[in-house]
Amino acid sequence: MSRNIQVSELDRQAVEDQSVEIVERKGVGHPDSISDGVAEAVSRALSALYLDRVGKVLHYNTDETQLVAGRAAPAFGGGEVIEPIYLLIVGRATKEYDGQQLPVDSTALTAAREYLDETIPELDPGADVIVDVRLGEGSGDLQEVFSEDGATVPMANDTSFGVGHAPLTETEEIVHTAERKLNTEYVADNPEIGPDVKIMGKREGDQITITVAAAMVDAYIADLDAYIDAVERVREYVTELAEGITDREVSVDVNTADDYDEGSIYLTVTGTSAEQGDDGSVGRGNRANGLITPNRPMSMEATSGKNPVNHIGKIYNLLSTKIAESVVDEVDGIRDLQLRLLSQIGQPIDQPHVADAQVVTADGVAVADREAEIRAIIDRELADVTDITRQVIDGELSTF
Amino acid sequence: MSRNIQVSELDRQAVEDQSVEIVERKGVGHPDSISDGVAEAVSRALSALYLDRVGKVLHYNTDETQLVAGRAAPAFGGGEVIEPIYLLIVGRATKEYDGQQLPVDSTALTAAREYLDETIPELDPGADVIVDVRLGEGSGDLQEVFSEDGATVPMANDTSFGVGHAPLTETEEIVHTAERKLNTEYVADNPEIGPDVKIMGKREGDQITITVAAAMVDAYIADLDAYIDAVERVREYVTELAEGITDREVSVDVNTADDYDEGSIYLTVTGTSAEQGDDGSVGRGNRANGLITPNRPMSMEATSGKNPVNHIGKIYNLLSTKIAESVVDEVDGIRDLQLRLLSQIGQPIDQPHVADAQVVTADGVAVADREAEIRAIIDRELADVTDITRQVIDGELSTF
Amino acid sequence: MSRNIQVSELDRQAVEDQSVEIVERKGVGHPDSISDGVAEAVSRALSALYLDRVGKVLHYNTDETQLVAGRAAPAFGGGEVIEPIYLLIVGRATKEYDGQQLPVDSTALTAAREYLDETIPELDPGADVIVDVRLGEGSGDLQEVFSEDGATVPMANDTSFGVGHAPLTETEEIVHTAERKLNTEYVADNPEIGPDVKIMGKREGDQITITVAAAMVDAYIADLDAYIDAVERVREYVTELAEGITDREVSVDVNTADDYDEGSIYLTVTGTSAEQGDDGSVGRGNRANGLITPNRPMSMEATSGKNPVNHIGKIYNLLSTKIAESVVDEVDGIRDLQLRLLSQIGQPIDQPHVADAQVVTADGVAVADREAEIRAIIDRELADVTDITRQVIDGELSTF
Amino acid sequence: MSRNIQVSELDRQAVEDQSVEIVERKGVGHPDSISDGVAEAVSRALSALYLDRVGKVLHYNTDETQLVAGRAAPAFGGGEVIEPIYLLIVGRATKEYDGQQLPVDSTALTAAREYLDETIPELDPGADVIVDVRLGEGSGDLQEVFSEDGATVPMANDTSFGVGHAPLTETEEIVHTAERKLNTEYVADNPEIGPDVKIMGKREGDQITITVAAAMVDAYIADLDAYIDAVERVREYVTELAEGITDREVSVDVNTADDYDEGSIYLTVTGTSAEQGDDGSVGRGNRANGLITPNRPMSMEATSGKNPVNHIGKIYNLLSTKIAESVVDEVDGIRDLQLRLLSQIGQPIDQPHVADAQVVTADGVAVADREAEIRAIIDRELADVTDITRQVIDGELSTF
Repeated sequence: MSRNIQVSELDRQAVEDQSVEIVERKGVGHPDSISDGVAEAVSRALSALYLDRVGKVLHYNTDETQLVAGRAAPAFGGGEVIEPIYLLIVGRATKEYDGQQLPVDSTALTAAREYLDETIPELDPGADVIVDVRLGEGSGDLQEVFSEDGATVPMANDTSFGVGHAPLTETEEIVHTAERKLNTEYVADNPEIGPDVKIMGKREGDQITITVAAAMVDAYIADLDAYIDAVERVREYVTELAEGITDREVSVDVNTADDYDEGSIYLTVTGTSAEQGDDGSVGRGNRANGLITPNRPMSMEATSGKNPVNHIGKIYNLLSTKIAESVVDEVDGIRDLQLRLLSQIGQPIDQPHVADAQVVTADGVAVADREAEIRAIIDRELADVTDITRQVIDGELSTF
Repeated sequence: MSRNIQVSELDRQAVEDQSVEIVERKGVGHPDSISDGVAEAVSRALSALYLDRVGKVLHYNTDETQLVAGRAAPAFGGGEVIEPIYLLIVGRATKEYDGQQLPVDSTALTAAREYLDETIPELDPGADVIVDVRLGEGSGDLQEVFSEDGATVPMANDTSFGVGHAPLTETEEIVHTAERKLNTEYVADNPEIGPDVKIMGKREGDQITITVAAAMVDAYIADLDAYIDAVERVREYVTELAEGITDREVSVDVNTADDYDEGSIYLTVTGTSAEQGDDGSVGRGNRANGLITPNRPMSMEATSGKNPVNHIGKIYNLLSTKIAESVVDEVDGIRDLQLRLLSQIGQPIDQPHVADAQVVTADGVAVADREAEIRAIIDRELADVTDITRQVIDGELSTF
Repeated sequence: MSRNIQVSELDRQAVEDQSVEIVERKGVGHPDSISDGVAEAVSRALSALYLDRVGKVLHYNTDETQLVAGRAAPAFGGGEVIEPIYLLIVGRATKEYDGQQLPVDSTALTAAREYLDETIPELDPGADVIVDVRLGEGSGDLQEVFSEDGATVPMANDTSFGVGHAPLTETEEIVHTAERKLNTEYVADNPEIGPDVKIMGKREGDQITITVAAAMVDAYIADLDAYIDAVERVREYVTELAEGITDREVSVDVNTADDYDEGSIYLTVTGTSAEQGDDGSVGRGNRANGLITPNRPMSMEATSGKNPVNHIGKIYNLLSTKIAESVVDEVDGIRDLQLRLLSQIGQPIDQPHVADAQVVTADGVAVADREAEIRAIIDRELADVTDITRQVIDGELSTF
Repeated sequence: MSRNIQVSELDRQAVEDQSVEIVERKGVGHPDSISDGVAEAVSRALSALYLDRVGKVLHYNTDETQLVAGRAAPAFGGGEVIEPIYLLIVGRATKEYDGQQLPVDSTALTAAREYLDETIPELDPGADVIVDVRLGEGSGDLQEVFSEDGATVPMANDTSFGVGHAPLTETEEIVHTAERKLNTEYVADNPEIGPDVKIMGKREGDQITITVAAAMVDAYIADLDAYIDAVERVREYVTELAEGITDREVSVDVNTADDYDEGSIYLTVTGTSAEQGDDGSVGRGNRANGLITPNRPMSMEATSGKNPVNHIGKIYNLLSTKIAESVVDEVDGIRDLQLRLLSQIGQPIDQPHVADAQVVTADGVAVADREAEIRAIIDRELADVTDITRQVIDGELSTF
């Protein structure tokens, strides 16, 4: 059956050309992102558990991790956490299959703790965080099968909607890249930066302002001068990075809420504001493409923690992004592409109700000139929908 | 200082004129809405407590209620809840002020329980739900003051963004009205309908499809025939209601996932799917205007539970909606208006960085013809920003 | 098979004749007793549930309720609870039987809440207490059967020990009666006394000192004078009551830790110290006969919350007390009787390894003169062991 | 002021000479003992924290740890925990002193986790146990001072009672030693034995029966034969140990509830029954001398977790045991000594209301011959009461 793929002109300007643009990314150490990350780590671990034990993924959903902030007393040279963070893993999972007990709670705990260890290395797992779990009994078998031997395409059991965009605007690119680089390349040499890096980008015309809120780790900050140096180094690093991405004018502000005279600075013990008063939960932060983009349509659906075999919202959010990126990679002359996938209840999800691509083409390029190419790529990617499931389980796709 | 208000033409079609439109509303008994509603009820109760005890609202934030689903065994004529729902109220609150202990935990519990009693009357408060609370210590005083004697306009301490729209499209109007009427007028005569009513609207051209998922309360449903009757009554009610709103062709589907042959129907003990496997949390469902509208820019910010005195995200989301509605009420010839408010750190919030109104006017009406009027209304409403706080505290504004 | 019953002379004086005697009773509103009472109320409710649904009692054990104290701000005329008490019901229960789901969690919650309502009427159930439950899955069927149709005598699966005494000494009688009367007869006319009444009795020779710690309910106490009056009324009431029981010299002290000058008095909002800092758990307070008696051998076994069908420790503790009382009721000339029951693994519990009665007879009475009578009563009561189970389920026997 | 010390003849036989004797010890891995051990480890850690930070011990009480059992699937060669154990640390602690925040929650968590690591090495701390904490705010300063510079003797603020005994009977010695040796010397070479070793001793006349319930760790047990071997080795080890202590006839039974035909054996993943259905809490198991001794008067008071500076019950239970042991060590001709300490409200605790020593002397020895010696030792030890506090803080005294 041929797929219902529509390609049309987007009835607005490319975001790159709009006069005002706002974009945000909450870094992996932000309380909402911690919740997303834990939920997704638990999801991956449960998929792996099920594949290992029964050869296929069973019903589960772990998309509701709740983080309750702790209390900390940071101090130059190293302070301490006073009250631990409380992290509650919430969801459903199949606990017994074919007479076999499945250690879903223990698996969830391990996955959460390993994720925290890796993502927030300064967090003492035994003293600074309580990880609790309330996973209800799931309903057993999935009708759809994802196993090592292959996968069936699931049926849509809900009206769901996914939306993807490509390419990133310069501002989006800067915001996304800055957080990723700070949390990988930069931190390797500058251990004082914590994983809770929140980046706002605002573009007005050709003036881009990047605002970074970066939690500093007190153990690596000897005094206020060291702190001021650390802030300045982040500013320089992000400025340079941004200037490599855009020719527009860029200004970078770091930790603008600081007040040195009052001694009010962004100093933390663990590198995350979750240690002091900032709660978090799944689906409240970054969308599936890693950004919050009020200039673009977004799905409200939380992607992290959902079952990757049959949750259409998760699959369509990830797939629409992947398709948009593929089209822009392979087809010339596209300034902005927005791809929406709408499910059709009772149909296989590779047969959406509609796959709706809207494009802004470059000057001199007509949509009609590219339509066939675009349609072919969408068709190809839809046919390969179960690969999304595989990539999620293998940890190749980020969900936040 | 004059406010930075911009009025321009919206660079897209009115949503009413777009070819495909999707909209959704999660009813008050949906697990995400329960979380929103409890968070906001707790917020109102804390505001009232602070006003009563110290004459002004103190620091708090209760925007993270987490609901862990229970397990139930519904049955025609009345089943039972097997495992209670677990509801965790999360946030921060000021527990001591000027030497006075403030009963924030007890107040939060009472508010949550009263809200549940009112919203989900079939839920037995002693047996079907555990309400727990983890409110961290807040940081005492607010710089901004909201008291019975008057209010100061708070300063923006964050870059935040709010967006509002008006008027509702026909599809939006149907979706929103249907849920509100089912949960008030209809249920008064038809006690079998539970508060967990989820409504999807999809418009393709001039064909509107409304999909209702309505949890039925088993105590009022004697058998399958009674259930089928109840479903049909909802269908007729919503159809009639929709036809009063639009001249387009409308079809209504109710509980489409039912399979009568398999005995799979949407029967519940309490009227909410939270009794059986559906978890929920704040900010995952309806936006501040009560709808999820992928065709329109939305703010990711959770509005429910936030402090109404100084949380810019909450205030701007509610205010932008109110302004958009006022403009459309008072100014002729506007088909679609989108109002964005962007805060300016360090400035009073009635002085946003920009208040950006984008409009689609009716045929024959130029934006320029209406600009002055629109600008004046926006200016007036911004000047009155603290009234939003008052309305929230008094429970006059819904946040979800 | 004849039972192994031994009757011998007790190798010590009657407690009544010892030079120093200490005895204590924690009233029903004491945090440890609340835990006991909730555990036992939950146990009774589960027995009733199982009898109602499947016609026999299934496996469960709910002997681990933990109470975490709250925080309160009492005040003359009526104060308030600041932080709720947290009560965690812990244990095991059979949740499914023969394909039928059994609402054990909801039943436990209801039972606990009803018990609290009845026992601590000033506690606001929605605001002052969080009741949580963690009941693990029990192992299904019991080998022993207790049903409406009759009961089988269970086999001992453990070496367990029960001990009972009779008669109560005068000091014991005073301590036990005082608490019972204060919490029933006295409170009916004096609502200011709370259920958390702790009574210590100390006898040195013929001088008895009764120390009462009675939580007063602030709503009924207008000022310090009223408090002092209330304390004095309790003193007079208990003095009169004690003088009706003994001819020895009695002095009664009430709330001795008070310091009126410092304003330090035992004033509470709810009538229990659980509202302010006193935690509690099962099995930490009164033994099965309602007293703590360091002068007598006691069993460490917690009686409250245990399954009354097959838990030997529970049954033997209650039965040994009942037998001791029966013997003393029916046989003349016994000053002190101590009855120990020791189970024999693999044998029916009406065939203990040994039922060991040790007696102190009155002057002029030889043990040998009473041995046959005593033996017969013990034999009769052992034969009727399953009546203990019935009485527990029907709430006729107190376990603490 | 001279102390009120009384020495008299005990009005019963030495327990060693009674016809029937029962004694029990729950090993360190038993769920009740885990709770005791965690409570006491947390107490020690808080004392150390306070000494380190403010130079003296502040108010706290952590005597209410509740353990909720997990669920496990043991298997020859190594099974797994399915649902983690949940451990709730409950109590009160001073969280702020002189403007300084004190990390009591984090300290408690660390102490609990380190204790578990050490005591139950097979328990995976990240997957098999959830450690939660609910410590209420304590009331700040202690009137009594225990600091590195010295200690003041606290005043009794309660009527409390402690009781100690010496020497241990042979049966008591066997039971206590067997558990201690199995959990230290034996396990070093026989890693299959878990720390949850429960030992019952029963003596009838000169026949001693020792019943051992020893949780075996599945990872070290390849098959049923290996299990049977392991059980037999424990039997031989305990038999040999017992025969070194007594000349009476000893029989040892190990894991008597096993049924090899039904495959019902005592196999565990972690070495404790807490992994599968056995809950635990503080004060429900061993008394302060490490034993449960129904033949002897016992205090109901939980010793573990109590504040060692000012909790009279804790101090008197430990001190009375220590005094009894000292007397028996230093004075010849004592077959049984029972020492009771009763506090006197408002007096320093080295001035008890009465220190009451009751002795059974050896044949030919009169109490009067030893009275002066005994009295002197009691007086000396009472004078040194604060050394108990020091020993508890330093971990030199076991409380269970």
